[in-house]
Amino acid sequence: MAAIAFSDRLVAAVDQRESQLVLGLDPDPLSLWDVAASAGEGGGTPAEQTARAVLAHCRALIDAAGPACVAAKPQLACFERLGAAGAAALAGVVAAAHEAGLLVIADGKRGDVPVTAAAYAQALAGSTDTPAGSVAGLGADAFTANPLLGIDALEPLIATGAGVFVLVRTSNPGAADVQDLELAAGGLLWEQLARTVDRLGVVRASGFADVGAVFGATAPAHLERARELMPHAIFLLPGVGAQGGRVEDLAPAFAPGRAGGLVSASRSIVAAHAGNGRGPVAAARAEAERLRALAWALT
Amino acid sequence: MAAIAFSDRLVAAVDQRESQLVLGLDPDPLSLWDVAASAGEGGGTPAEQTARAVLAHCRALIDAAGPACVAAKPQLACFERLGAAGAAALAGVVAAAHEAGLLVIADGKRGDVPVTAAAYAQALAGSTDTPAGSVAGLGADAFTANPLLGIDALEPLIATGAGVFVLVRTSNPGAADVQDLELAAGGLLWEQLARTVDRLGVVRASGFADVGAVFGATAPAHLERARELMPHAIFLLPGVGAQGGRVEDLAPAFAPGRAGGLVSASRSIVAAHAGNGRGPVAAARAEAERLRALAWALT
Repeated sequence: MAAIAFSDRLVAAVDQRESQLVLGLDPDPLSLWDVAASAGEGGGTPAEQTARAVLAHCRALIDAAGPACVAAKPQLACFERLGAAGAAALAGVVAAAHEAGLLVIADGKRGDVPVTAAAYAQALAGSTDTPAGSVAGLGADAFTANPLLGIDALEPLIATGAGVFVLVRTSNPGAADVQDLELAAGGLLWEQLARTVDRLGVVRASGFADVGAVFGATAPAHLERARELMPHAIFLLPGVGAQGGRVEDLAPAFAPGRAGGLVSASRSIVAAHAGNGRGPVAAARAEAERLRALAWALT
Repeated sequence: MAAIAFSDRLVAAVDQRESQLVLGLDPDPLSLWDVAASAGEGGGTPAEQTARAVLAHCRALIDAAGPACVAAKPQLACFERLGAAGAAALAGVVAAAHEAGLLVIADGKRGDVPVTAAAYAQALAGSTDTPAGSVAGLGADAFTANPLLGIDALEPLIATGAGVFVLVRTSNPGAADVQDLELAAGGLLWEQLARTVDRLGVVRASGFADVGAVFGATAPAHLERARELMPHAIFLLPGVGAQGGRVEDLAPAFAPGRAGGLVSASRSIVAAHAGNGRGPVAAARAEAERLRALAWALT
């Protein structure tokens, strides 16, 4: 459990690194950088070979784009599909991100009944007491969470002291199906989720709360309203680039301060070399720096 | 991908085993059966020792209670908190359940944007193509899923051909916070989720669809309405026992047939020996048989 609140640590890191950019790590085994291929060679099962290559790929991506970023966001699904070897690779990615001075946001969108939410809290940002001693969890500084199960299911996650980014409005086209349902009491479901985020967050010295919101960069029209409902929340903004979101449209996120918005990009950085003559490392570095400067200029 | 639809396989298994009982596997390292303790001894990290003990515990539980059950439901969080060693233990649990003739319902309540949902589909019930060859996923016959992200986020999960139990109304007290919100168009949010489940499910030869619903046994008052909205869905009914749900109240789930309801119990079985003179194995076997007979008698 961090002695300094997540939001305070994030604000300090944003200032120091002059970045609000989050490096999304969603490694696809069929699209890894060439540099990773040799790491995958040698012995072991296909899962072990692939997990080594995935880790090498993520390390290279962190080396290239990390300096322009404030945090890394590994997508847990991409590691889970490689089983135990993938779990080991994920731990390696967290270590590499921390070594590079990045905060780690574990993106698993977990949500479960309270007793199980407590187990996820242990897995992501806590530890588990066992007869053999304490078993450390992933060591994430923050993680994403799904609020469908209600407040008692969010509480064990928030109690970790880590940052919790609650899904409020996601970046996919289908987000509207449920999140935009109109409520009898007025407003849309996502606005109700936003009120919950605002109520659950304790505002820290920085002026921000440790309970933030996932808000798709693909829905910029709603961003001003979201900021009104959640004046102290940090917004994690996925969907820039491949999903169609534009950094230029995200200004309302930053209204309360530079750390008010975290712009998450993954495919646009990792695949920046596609269609131009650069190697992946140089292209990723340039694209991350471009996105960083674009967001910083808004604030 | 199973050649026979999940719902058809489930109906056959329910008939053959004369059971609608699901064995919940939520191993707590501090409450493992004594039989597991020796498995944890020997070398390795605390995580590795604990994971061995957890696997031994789950195997013993499957041996004891499995014969009275039709499926096992490992709670993914309980394995994730042990990292890579936990992922290996989870694979061992799935193998042990399959060896015991049980279907496996992976309980992770995943939900993410389509590209990530596809990665979860690979992890849970599919496989992942890699340059090193195909990497098999967990091999679950079914899994739980969270519908907050909308229909496009559920589609890659359904496309696996595995059973997908979509959260409709959960068993925790906080479930009402979001799931019971009243909609402007009439009805409650969970009723809208129920309509989505009904619409997404293709009805198989058995009369049931492969898209089912998680419906807390703690909300039996709503069960008749749920059945009305989802006439062909299989209901996964958690919350019996420790959470206060009673098998006797679940009759509406079984209206369309014996496989219409799956009664999930975990703490009430694993801790059945508490406060009586029996050993855990005999107590778990007796409690599972009692719950099996109780549910079967309703149908």
